Amino acid sequence: MYDLLKGLRVVEGSAFVAGPTCGLYLAQMGAEVIRFDQIGGGPDFRRWPLTPRTEEGGGDSLYWEGLNKGKKSIALDLSRPEGRELAQRLAAAPGGAGGADGAMFVTNFPVEGFLSYATLAALNRDLICVRVMGWADGSQGMDYTINAALGLPLMTGPTDDARPVNHVLAAWDLLTGAYSAFALMAALVARLRGEGGREIRVPLSDVGAATMANLGFAAETLTTGAPRPRMGNDLYGAFGRDFTTRDGQRLMLLCVTPRQWAKALEALGLTAAVADLEAGLGVSFAADEGLRFTHRARLYPLFERAFAAKDAAALTAALDAGGVTWGAYQTMVEALEDRRLYKDNPLFEVVRHPSGLSYPTPGAMGAVLPDARQAVRPAPRLGQHTDEVLAQVLGLTSGEIGRLHDARLVAGADGR
Amino acid sequence: MYDLLKGLRVVEGSAFVAGPTCGLYLAQMGAEVIRFDQIGGGPDFRRWPLTPRTEEGGGDSLYWEGLNKGKKSIALDLSRPEGRELAQRLAAAPGGAGGADGAMFVTNFPVEGFLSYATLAALNRDLICVRVMGWADGSQGMDYTINAALGLPLMTGPTDDARPVNHVLAAWDLLTGAYSAFALMAALVARLRGEGGREIRVPLSDVGAATMANLGFAAETLTTGAPRPRMGNDLYGAFGRDFTTRDGQRLMLLCVTPRQWAKALEALGLTAAVADLEAGLGVSFAADEGLRFTHRARLYPLFERAFAAKDAAALTAALDAGGVTWGAYQTMVEALEDRRLYKDNPLFEVVRHPSGLSYPTPGAMGAVLPDARQAVRPAPRLGQHTDEVLAQVLGLTSGEIGRLHDARLVAGADGR
Repeated sequence: MYDLLKGLRVVEGSAFVAGPTCGLYLAQMGAEVIRFDQIGGGPDFRRWPLTPRTEEGGGDSLYWEGLNKGKKSIALDLSRPEGRELAQRLAAAPGGAGGADGAMFVTNFPVEGFLSYATLAALNRDLICVRVMGWADGSQGMDYTINAALGLPLMTGPTDDARPVNHVLAAWDLLTGAYSAFALMAALVARLRGEGGREIRVPLSDVGAATMANLGFAAETLTTGAPRPRMGNDLYGAFGRDFTTRDGQRLMLLCVTPRQWAKALEALGLTAAVADLEAGLGVSFAADEGLRFTHRARLYPLFERAFAAKDAAALTAALDAGGVTWGAYQTMVEALEDRRLYKDNPLFEVVRHPSGLSYPTPGAMGAVLPDARQAVRPAPRLGQHTDEVLAQVLGLTSGEIGRLHDARLVAGADGR
Repeated sequence: MYDLLKGLRVVEGSAFVAGPTCGLYLAQMGAEVIRFDQIGGGPDFRRWPLTPRTEEGGGDSLYWEGLNKGKKSIALDLSRPEGRELAQRLAAAPGGAGGADGAMFVTNFPVEGFLSYATLAALNRDLICVRVMGWADGSQGMDYTINAALGLPLMTGPTDDARPVNHVLAAWDLLTGAYSAFALMAALVARLRGEGGREIRVPLSDVGAATMANLGFAAETLTTGAPRPRMGNDLYGAFGRDFTTRDGQRLMLLCVTPRQWAKALEALGLTAAVADLEAGLGVSFAADEGLRFTHRARLYPLFERAFAAKDAAALTAALDAGGVTWGAYQTMVEALEDRRLYKDNPLFEVVRHPSGLSYPTPGAMGAVLPDARQAVRPAPRLGQHTDEVLAQVLGLTSGEIGRLHDARLVAGADGR
């Protein structure tokens, strides 16, 4: 938690990964992020992984509570017109102090419908809305189906296996979420300059297509006429791969820059052998990373022997001492014991969550200096802030709020 | 190109993916992004893929020109103190109109060294610096080594193969880049509110560790004591996998929400068969996505038969008509012919690049409404804006600029 966005109010009506991570990043930089959900939970409220089932309950979503940290929660009945109207008023509500710092809405609700930009802008023409979409034309698409369409699963995995390999990490969702947070801030900067509201649509399909072009994949295929072939764990265009130590550990080695290449050769004792190979081929690997890639089949046996000659403990000590860029393939259990990732990482703090479990939980993934890190906040219970939000954001009286509860149009944390 | 960030000036001193994508997103939303590079190009200037070699030349980086679209380029000799001083002055330079809109610097140069925050803040205490890092402790790490440490390659790929599978898409780099653009904007919003400059450090290792926690992977392993097992292309916690049609096409099917599940059963003619299975098991798959996952081995044969009964053309027409969430596994060649991704996508425009090639090129990956999309701008030639930047940003006279050229401390697009 930091205070950079103190005083900003953002309303989130979204599910799954992209919209919720956008809201999470904003909340952890200090914005007041108010998430509305269907009473009883939206489509992501029971998403796996779940907490273990116990006699007292369990079965709560670790995913939901991970993605909604530091937000406020209001529960509405979005199936009825009156509940939908409350959502519309929330999405369009101006900020507190003069209104300039509110009227920001993050959603993955459809372009047309009760949360359309036209509907909301009629309530507040200064509204900034960032809308995450699947396909840009509005058709059904999620990370894994769009990833398949982009061609990556056919480029992923061992060369001796033609089956497509899906990614496990929903990379397009995550990139879309972070880009959406950026886009919201960009529209806010324009509004602070005196411009009006805007809608920014961020479709996963465009994020994917643009990114594959930004990285050169698209132009490469246009010039070669062929997709990039599958190449297992080989780094494309430079030198990198996993190698196996004498005791069977796999380590990922990367040599992209001349410095990384020189250091790896030195630490592995390969400088002379590689110089011989260079002399034979009439090339300089140090000067051209592409040559390391082109001739990798000649280089690999040298590296395989060097890795196989030592146990991981001795080898990794030498690689570290030599400033080599390498990484062990760890299981998530090992990762949790890795002091640089989790165990001694100041980004993490043990927090008690709505599920009742306490576990190490990250704050903002950037470190803002010289500001001190503030406490990591857990996700809310569903509906925990219903009354507070209705009173403070929509200005409802306690009598009005009571009538909404009686009509079951809203619910608090106890579900009533 | 949009104008949301018109009037902002950001200096970029970075290489590879994270820093350059941060600058790209800013440039395509209208900021003036000035990238400085070593004369002759930095470590990413020859990164593959390259343009085809021809008699006239070729061998230019499609990667570099993809990642640096719409930026200005100044080439400096960063190996000498005078060149380094120019980089420092650029990074810290205030904006044009009163200075409030400049002094933003994006870099992956080391924390300590000639571009340290302390050094730059001594020139301008309002400076906002976003610093992309590998490991948070400053040690060598790049996307593929940190990804290995996080445990994902051991969770990826077919269940009948224990080898780790690296991702092909540098997801951590990309997420770090977009988050960095957000973080820069957040610090700008604070500065516009009257606060001073800041440094925000965004290490790939923290982005990775936090994201694996945000998504519930870390808490899951803490509660189960085991890493999530490898499960091929199965979607975790709901229903989704690739299935093969009669004519051998693989299609990815996703059923996360109750609606997606119902529509898939209907389009595939499986409603009755699944109801029988539910009756036998005493469960309702519609009500609980986790049960679809738990019992997926019982469900898969039904879906396999339904997919194998039809050719892809007939099946995909039925899936589309039924509003099912599915995706074909396309090669990149097929993706380029996909009208929704590339062929008819208004995000793309044919642009002539520094390499001399013209090809479809994306603008900003979010659509800003109601603003009109402006022309997509190509990357600069290296050093194309050297003199302009020295004059306009550092206020040097043409005599001073000439002396810098003579001393080979700077170079223009012709390399001199």
